[in-house]
Amino acid sequence: TPETAERTSVPGVATGLAVTGTGGDVLFVEASLADPESGAGGLTLTGQLGDVMKESAQIALSYLRSRGAELELPVGDLKERGVHLHVPAGAIPKDGPSAGVTMTTALASLLSGRPARADVAMTGEVSLTGRVLPIGGVKQKLLAAHRAGITTVLIPSRNEPDLDDVPQDVLDQLTVHAVSDVREVLDLALSPAEARERLAA
Amino acid sequence: TPETAERTSVPGVATGLAVTGTGGDVLFVEASLADPESGAGGLTLTGQLGDVMKESAQIALSYLRSRGAELELPVGDLKERGVHLHVPAGAIPKDGPSAGVTMTTALASLLSGRPARADVAMTGEVSLTGRVLPIGGVKQKLLAAHRAGITTVLIPSRNEPDLDDVPQDVLDQLTVHAVSDVREVLDLALSPAEARERLAA
Amino acid sequence: TPETAERTSVPGVATGLAVTGTGGDVLFVEASLADPESGAGGLTLTGQLGDVMKESAQIALSYLRSRGAELELPVGDLKERGVHLHVPAGAIPKDGPSAGVTMTTALASLLSGRPARADVAMTGEVSLTGRVLPIGGVKQKLLAAHRAGITTVLIPSRNEPDLDDVPQDVLDQLTVHAVSDVREVLDLALSPAEARERLAA
Amino acid sequence: TPETAERTSVPGVATGLAVTGTGGDVLFVEASLADPESGAGGLTLTGQLGDVMKESAQIALSYLRSRGAELELPVGDLKERGVHLHVPAGAIPKDGPSAGVTMTTALASLLSGRPARADVAMTGEVSLTGRVLPIGGVKQKLLAAHRAGITTVLIPSRNEPDLDDVPQDVLDQLTVHAVSDVREVLDLALSPAEARERLAA
Amino acid sequence: TPETAERTSVPGVATGLAVTGTGGDVLFVEASLADPESGAGGLTLTGQLGDVMKESAQIALSYLRSRGAELELPVGDLKERGVHLHVPAGAIPKDGPSAGVTMTTALASLLSGRPARADVAMTGEVSLTGRVLPIGGVKQKLLAAHRAGITTVLIPSRNEPDLDDVPQDVLDQLTVHAVSDVREVLDLALSPAEARERLAA
Amino acid sequence: TPETAERTSVPGVATGLAVTGTGGDVLFVEASLADPESGAGGLTLTGQLGDVMKESAQIALSYLRSRGAELELPVGDLKERGVHLHVPAGAIPKDGPSAGVTMTTALASLLSGRPARADVAMTGEVSLTGRVLPIGGVKQKLLAAHRAGITTVLIPSRNEPDLDDVPQDVLDQLTVHAVSDVREVLDLALSPAEARERLAA
Ligand SMILES: [Ca+2]
Ligand SMILES: [Ca+2]
Ligand SMILES: [Ca+2]
Ligand SMILES: [Ca+2]
Ligand SMILES: [Ca+2]
Ligand SMILES: [Ca+2]
Ligand SMILES: [Ca+2]
Ligand SMILES: [Ca+2]
Ligand SMILES: [Ca+2]
Ligand SMILES: [Ca+2]
Ligand SMILES: [Ca+2]
Ligand SMILES: [Ca+2]
Repeated sequence: TPETAERTSVPGVATGLAVTGTGGDVLFVEASLADPESGAGGLTLTGQLGDVMKESAQIALSYLRSRGAELELPVGDLKERGVHLHVPAGAIPKDGPSAGVTMTTALASLLSGRPARADVAMTGEVSLTGRVLPIGGVKQKLLAAHRAGITTVLIPSRNEPDLDDVPQDVLDQLTVHAVSDVREVLDLALSPAEARERLAA
Repeated sequence: TPETAERTSVPGVATGLAVTGTGGDVLFVEASLADPESGAGGLTLTGQLGDVMKESAQIALSYLRSRGAELELPVGDLKERGVHLHVPAGAIPKDGPSAGVTMTTALASLLSGRPARADVAMTGEVSLTGRVLPIGGVKQKLLAAHRAGITTVLIPSRNEPDLDDVPQDVLDQLTVHAVSDVREVLDLALSPAEARERLAA
Repeated sequence: TPETAERTSVPGVATGLAVTGTGGDVLFVEASLADPESGAGGLTLTGQLGDVMKESAQIALSYLRSRGAELELPVGDLKERGVHLHVPAGAIPKDGPSAGVTMTTALASLLSGRPARADVAMTGEVSLTGRVLPIGGVKQKLLAAHRAGITTVLIPSRNEPDLDDVPQDVLDQLTVHAVSDVREVLDLALSPAEARERLAA
Repeated sequence: TPETAERTSVPGVATGLAVTGTGGDVLFVEASLADPESGAGGLTLTGQLGDVMKESAQIALSYLRSRGAELELPVGDLKERGVHLHVPAGAIPKDGPSAGVTMTTALASLLSGRPARADVAMTGEVSLTGRVLPIGGVKQKLLAAHRAGITTVLIPSRNEPDLDDVPQDVLDQLTVHAVSDVREVLDLALSPAEARERLAA
Repeated sequence: TPETAERTSVPGVATGLAVTGTGGDVLFVEASLADPESGAGGLTLTGQLGDVMKESAQIALSYLRSRGAELELPVGDLKERGVHLHVPAGAIPKDGPSAGVTMTTALASLLSGRPARADVAMTGEVSLTGRVLPIGGVKQKLLAAHRAGITTVLIPSRNEPDLDDVPQDVLDQLTVHAVSDVREVLDLALSPAEARERLAA
Repeated sequence: TPETAERTSVPGVATGLAVTGTGGDVLFVEASLADPESGAGGLTLTGQLGDVMKESAQIALSYLRSRGAELELPVGDLKERGVHLHVPAGAIPKDGPSAGVTMTTALASLLSGRPARADVAMTGEVSLTGRVLPIGGVKQKLLAAHRAGITTVLIPSRNEPDLDDVPQDVLDQLTVHAVSDVREVLDLALSPAEARERLAA
């Protein structure tokens, strides 16, 4: 969609799905790494995140700090450069663990320089070992993805039974991947490394 | 106006617009960088800022820490020198995300040495990637800008429809720019780099 | 069981037992160590842990920091690498001291590189000298272990009398070890060191 | 007056004016810099100061950290030496932004070694760029200054209209300076640099 | 007793006495020092300790930091090695100053390598200069010590009059030492240095 | 008196006077400096001190950090050695600014190695420049000093009028010094430097 295309046009932004008071909605997780010359360090979290969602961010970061080298990500960047995760809109309180995959993807996108694919949205809790754990609100989230023009949605394997509740015509227009490890999420959600080189050309 | 001219006569001050209990008002964001010899570090925020507004300041700072070099700003200054953002009046509580563009402009003005233009006021939330997100109170803010003698106002693109609510005679006397990236804000709000040299001459 | 096998297939995950509002349940404690290049330090705790459970994590870590060398664990890793302990599910509040043995086992598994055995679950408070102190809910915890396909359960020696309350057919299908020192737990719960070498081969 | 003479006889003490439950009162702001050999650092604030008044102290310090070199103050002292600002009496809660000029003067007095003039009292909020902003209670503050034997009072320019409320016989005995930049305050309130040399002779 | 013998068999554990809702009880204070290679620092306190009891731990530590060298304790260990004091059971809240002597003894035992004597229990507040100050609950504490098979109890000198309330047959089976300086406590409660060498042989 | 003699027999303890619910009482302020080898730093405050009393301790320390060299005190000790101030009894909450002179004396005693005189008690707030400010409860405090066998009491000059309320027979048995600078307190309350040498002989 135009909006997700615009938002995810730079590395560091991933498209998530949330349940709100009035249904579901698309949500963007933005990550930044400070210029090492600017002297920043540590992890900054903004977007009026609740306790559970702040913990999701810490889990996403620790996952990459402990497993990032296996994924060929330059984890040394996390040492010298302050990490900031933000979830607009700034004034709206948000909570829950289901943005875990989205936060991990935003950070991995930033570290790898591979933008997230504009047609992919995702939802799922992440554990410290990278397992994707089930979340709530699958129906509302898929309806919201569909409304936003998303064509591919990633959900936790253990949420597959919830697809029964989603209207068939919506499912027909979405490619849904059920995943159990966050590495599958990264494979499906990040643009291929080649894409980056093409952009730089 | 005399007041905005006086307030923005030095780099580091930008003119924002706020909604108050009794309408709208002009508000100044002041930024300072400590002398490196004075040993200060980190980010200090004052002006009885609420949680959302404090997060806006962190976003503005992280935006410049991660993208400042692209903008040819000397981000190394942020390492050695304590940053302080203050929003007078000191005793009045303030909150909300809409000063994001103003905070980014005040900091960029300070780093670049380019004073903000005295005839420009602005409002808009900023995301970590520099996108300008919509805010509330466009009508009250434009009325306040007009009352204060401001001639140019910067608003988020997604707030353009709100201009319909602003009296035509006020719009006639204002140049309104609808922006979607904070780089547009910096281009429009900061005095040209030449101006600084002229001052130094 | 398939789930515990999957969860404990990597070093750093141990299977505990908890009392919940509706009986007992199996719970996984996950530990990670940051890549030294990533610059992380200190102890991060997530999973909506209550005060007592956070203290259990500190005790588990201090036990290994003071006694780990005797156990031939590479405690120097704790200096250079940030430690993170997480207990999914992320949104469910948890408290109490009875995950002490599980936390100690998860950390020792990570440091030793020896995965925890998939057929073993455990419960018990740990003191700073490594003594295993009694806990509550033995009956519910053993029923939960049995339901989850666990075949070996470790309980504190001082809880042996509580086995009288457990149905005989459940006890018949479980091997229960009553332990008084956490070193016994590590001996029984971690895969032999050889296993690791075989995996690496 | 004897008391203000005694209190301001050493560099680092400035005389302010406050509104209390029963009218106005003279108040002293004391500043100290730790001996570099004593190893102290940072900013310590005492005197049961409220949030707004603590922010005033941070603003005063940042103003001097960013502009002190222009004022020929030895800002390097702020790096190596812990700064302490205290407002007696220790048990009386105090708040509000109007001691900003007094705090700036106390610190500048300490850094310059120039004692504050015993016959001068002051009130005014200070912004981060050194602007003196209006405050409340001008009438009560001038009556208090007069009662305490003060002969010169510094007030914000924007408070000049409030002088209409002050009894003419009190105004006749006071020299009132309306100031808009804190540099004017320092010029009027600090003893000339020569005075210090005379004392040292 | 078997339990105190087991608990105090290693250096770093001392036997205290507490008043509980249902009378008195024996309580163990455990201390650990992190392996210097593990990189830990500072003081960690666990066991759901209240504010007063946390302060007792700080006093015990500061006493040893300032007077330990006189007592021929290797206080340099406190620099390089994180100190942890824990009072099981982990889930039971505890408070009050009367574990001061027990905390000091546990730490001194750890530093000296001399285990605490298994037949000795103690109660008493400690001041920063090592004075033993009076506490409450002497009767309940001595009854609890007697029940637990303790044969020697250390109490503050100023609590000697409270011995009148203790049943004579209990007093007949206890050796009670009234002490006024914590050095007397250490002399009476720690095994002789020779004992350690014998153990090491 | 025997108790004050015993308590003040070592450097670092000074005798203060407090108002309690039931009249006045003698109170001891204890100070310690950690062995530099033990690695402690900073200021630790214990004794259930309220906010105002904690600020008094910070003022006492800053006074000595900024003026200690003039008083020929070895302020470098404050850099390398953790400072701890404790006011027994540990479980009794205390507050108010009137222990300022006592805290300054305890610290100066410790730094100088000169014990406080056992026959002297004191009360008074201290400002950051060392001025002794008035306090409450003079009558109750002098009665308490007299009951405790104290023969010399130091009070703030501005409290001299309160002596009218003290019974004449009590005043006849006390030497009362009214002081306005904390240096007078130190001169009157600390044993002469010679005394220390005599003790060391
Ligand atoms: Ca999501
Ligand atoms: Ca959820
Ligand atoms: Ca604004
Ligand atoms: Ca808004
Ligand atoms: Ca458990
Ligand atoms: Ca339990
Ligand atoms: Ca004032
Ligand atoms: Ca005011
Ligand atoms: Ca005890
Ligand atoms: Ca007690
Ligand atoms: Ca006192
Ligand atoms: Ca008082």
